[in-house]
Amino acid sequence: MNRRAVLRVLGFIVLAVGLAMLLPCLMAAADGGRDLVAFLISAAIPIVLGVVLLGTTRGSVDLRLKDGFAIVTFAWLAAALLGALPYQLSGATATFVDALFESMSGFTTTGATVIADIEVLPRGVLLWRSLTQWLGGMGIVVLSVAVLPMLGIGGMQLFKAEVPGPTADRLSPRISSTARLLWGVYVGMTVVEAALLVLGDMNWFDALCHSLTTVSTGGFSTRNASVGAFDSAYVDGVITAFMFLAGANFSLHYWALRRHAVRYTRNEEFRAYALLTLAATLLVVLQLTLRNDEGVLHALRLAAFQAVSILTSTGFGTADFLLWGFGAQLLMFALMFIGGCAGSTGGGMKVMRAVVLAKHGMREIRKHMHPNAIFNVRLSGHLVQDEVMMKILGFFLLYASVFMLVALAVAAMGLDAASAFGASIATLSNIGPGLGSVGPASTYADVPLAAKALLSFNMLVGRLEVYTVVILLTPMFWRRT
Amino acid sequence: MNRRAVLRVLGFIVLAVGLAMLLPCLMAAADGGRDLVAFLISAAIPIVLGVVLLGTTRGSVDLRLKDGFAIVTFAWLAAALLGALPYQLSGATATFVDALFESMSGFTTTGATVIADIEVLPRGVLLWRSLTQWLGGMGIVVLSVAVLPMLGIGGMQLFKAEVPGPTADRLSPRISSTARLLWGVYVGMTVVEAALLVLGDMNWFDALCHSLTTVSTGGFSTRNASVGAFDSAYVDGVITAFMFLAGANFSLHYWALRRHAVRYTRNEEFRAYALLTLAATLLVVLQLTLRNDEGVLHALRLAAFQAVSILTSTGFGTADFLLWGFGAQLLMFALMFIGGCAGSTGGGMKVMRAVVLAKHGMREIRKHMHPNAIFNVRLSGHLVQDEVMMKILGFFLLYASVFMLVALAVAAMGLDAASAFGASIATLSNIGPGLGSVGPASTYADVPLAAKALLSFNMLVGRLEVYTVVILLTPMFWRRT
Repeated sequence: MNRRAVLRVLGFIVLAVGLAMLLPCLMAAADGGRDLVAFLISAAIPIVLGVVLLGTTRGSVDLRLKDGFAIVTFAWLAAALLGALPYQLSGATATFVDALFESMSGFTTTGATVIADIEVLPRGVLLWRSLTQWLGGMGIVVLSVAVLPMLGIGGMQLFKAEVPGPTADRLSPRISSTARLLWGVYVGMTVVEAALLVLGDMNWFDALCHSLTTVSTGGFSTRNASVGAFDSAYVDGVITAFMFLAGANFSLHYWALRRHAVRYTRNEEFRAYALLTLAATLLVVLQLTLRNDEGVLHALRLAAFQAVSILTSTGFGTADFLLWGFGAQLLMFALMFIGGCAGSTGGGMKVMRAVVLAKHGMREIRKHMHPNAIFNVRLSGHLVQDEVMMKILGFFLLYASVFMLVALAVAAMGLDAASAFGASIATLSNIGPGLGSVGPASTYADVPLAAKALLSFNMLVGRLEVYTVVILLTPMFWRRT
Repeated sequence: MNRRAVLRVLGFIVLAVGLAMLLPCLMAAADGGRDLVAFLISAAIPIVLGVVLLGTTRGSVDLRLKDGFAIVTFAWLAAALLGALPYQLSGATATFVDALFESMSGFTTTGATVIADIEVLPRGVLLWRSLTQWLGGMGIVVLSVAVLPMLGIGGMQLFKAEVPGPTADRLSPRISSTARLLWGVYVGMTVVEAALLVLGDMNWFDALCHSLTTVSTGGFSTRNASVGAFDSAYVDGVITAFMFLAGANFSLHYWALRRHAVRYTRNEEFRAYALLTLAATLLVVLQLTLRNDEGVLHALRLAAFQAVSILTSTGFGTADFLLWGFGAQLLMFALMFIGGCAGSTGGGMKVMRAVVLAKHGMREIRKHMHPNAIFNVRLSGHLVQDEVMMKILGFFLLYASVFMLVALAVAAMGLDAASAFGASIATLSNIGPGLGSVGPASTYADVPLAAKALLSFNMLVGRLEVYTVVILLTPMFWRRT
């Protein structure tokens, strides 16, 4: 491992986290100085650390494959650790494990919280929570389009043709032009959503915080009742639309802005994503109207919001889906595995993988009937090579294994079966709310400390597409070559 | 499809089911004639049907691939349907769906029951319950070593060298000599276990019924408290040992009888199976001694019995593992996916597949680090070809999908999350007891009728290794070629 180069890249990231903390400092100052000292200390530590790292690691950055895995994992770890300082120093969380959970939940755009009462927090802390998700989402955009494909992870290799601009061919610390274009889309979406929410009579602070956590599919809210607190069909509609956009491949939005909106419908993953959203919404509407006697329009509003919120891994709520009957509950649980599209800020296994896996299943069924025939799997017309298929199948396998192992472990720590399953997938897929005692109307506050630590780790594993983190856990990685 | 040939084979099977029913007829006659008429009618129907089928379909039986899928699925369906007659006609079950559930649970060696109080049933019915499992196990032995490999399903193609005798190369209704050898092992095990149980002061009827349902990894008991009712360390020990043997590849027992016991340790699947059993037992012992304050020896007895019972998919109980803490509960749940060895009567995905999947996961992790290196997966020294790996990965995918879909569906029918997960895997893997309201201390009696029907179907899907049944559900199968 090229330790100097790795530390230099981490220096940039640590410095960026420190500089971002100056925003909550301003907020705290504007709000009469409450927690200002806590924020200033929290900002000073990463800024100093970042400057020291950059100062001691001068020289060109030349990275190899191995360094990539280390940088990505350590970048998120460092951000989460340093980002926990404001929570801890301001007294928002009781223990450092809680602070780390909250911070990791932010930077991984998960949205699970250990803070039972959010509304008593000062605006500086609330802004920091939202900001961590937005920064995490920014990281994911560059990760999914520029970094992971180079590490051989993720499904974006299938989409080379779809990604705008020149694809970077070296793992360079300079942000590739691809990422910059997509960041433009990301920032633009944030601004437009915030403006639309202000138009809907939301105050500017709530509007800003919610748009930061919508486009990143994070799901942190400024209210205990999440988006439900605003009780507005307009707000629900705007947020549903932007969650849906945030869960789609950002390259498609870029092309749409350049008047190539037809790429949406040409893209098989997007079509499947839209179809899944529709199907899930419809099933929940059926449940709500037939079983729970809701009016059709209100049911549609609730169902669309919840289906999109879960599928995109945002995790906002306007209702407690645990009260909708066990069928709706398990439907949400199943959606948690799928997640958003590749190249979006959404978590989960990604719609692309789900589509390819479904096609492989169909192929194997056919092959059993016609053992000597050859059946190819295609996505948006492109042949999925056996090598890629093995990778995607391996990913599914690892994902399911991590889900099961973490569920087992947190059950051993005291969570009941439904809560353990829910907590495991809600953190692995970066959703937030799960089932049982960690459902939409609850928080992770009462989860045992050890489970909080494990679930924080699970968020990291899921966010970095499993392989990135798991590879660092093998002795093979640390062997000198 | 060669309809005449398919019907002829089904005729043999239906006739065999009818003839087997004469045994409970004798039992009913010996017990004073209670339910004798019900049994005579139940036996007459399949015997007449079988004779008619055989009489109208004379000629040589020439089968092709397609016919194989149809025969296997329809054979189990026919046996389950006709095997339901005694329950329904004797009044042991309230509805025909209940009777079918009980019968399917028997022939698929699942062991889930809808009869809340077993001990009030006459011995004729109890014998029939046990007998269906024993016959089902017999079917599985021939299926796994002779039929499925020809259909390209199952992992036995990896074990060609391990299977004794000439492997049949045509899908012939004449039982291959392979199957006959293994049936010898099967019958021998049944007799020895029954004798050992009688030595342990069990009455001959209970001993017979329990040995019939042990070697088939079925799990039907004659007591409401299952094996726990005998409260005997000796009985627990004997049954634990025979469950373990029944969950291992029967070919290995055959070779052991021919003084080649070394094949046990040479067989990688068997080693993994033994290791898994040990590990699971140990984890439960830890839980029981450290948390539940059990003595070590008693904990070991309970833990070994339960771990083996679940892993082999038998489903007998000497304790309610739902009372052992959530960790032990989820451990049992995880074991339910794995199941016994290929070539055993055990259900689940099979240890062989789990081992190969784990190796594929490890390989993919390594490949991400060294993208240009080639890593092979071997089992017992044999290379696992990509083609076979794709098949096994596809199987895992289908298995997980069926598990999730059935859980979703039964949740929509009213089962809570934990019970839905438990019921789905407990039937798909042919275990019997699940989690929540269908746990070891409960029955499936209170499950809604529609869910009973779906779960019966799930047993069939799991028992026939998913593909066999799923293929019949595709339009492709029914298209004329």
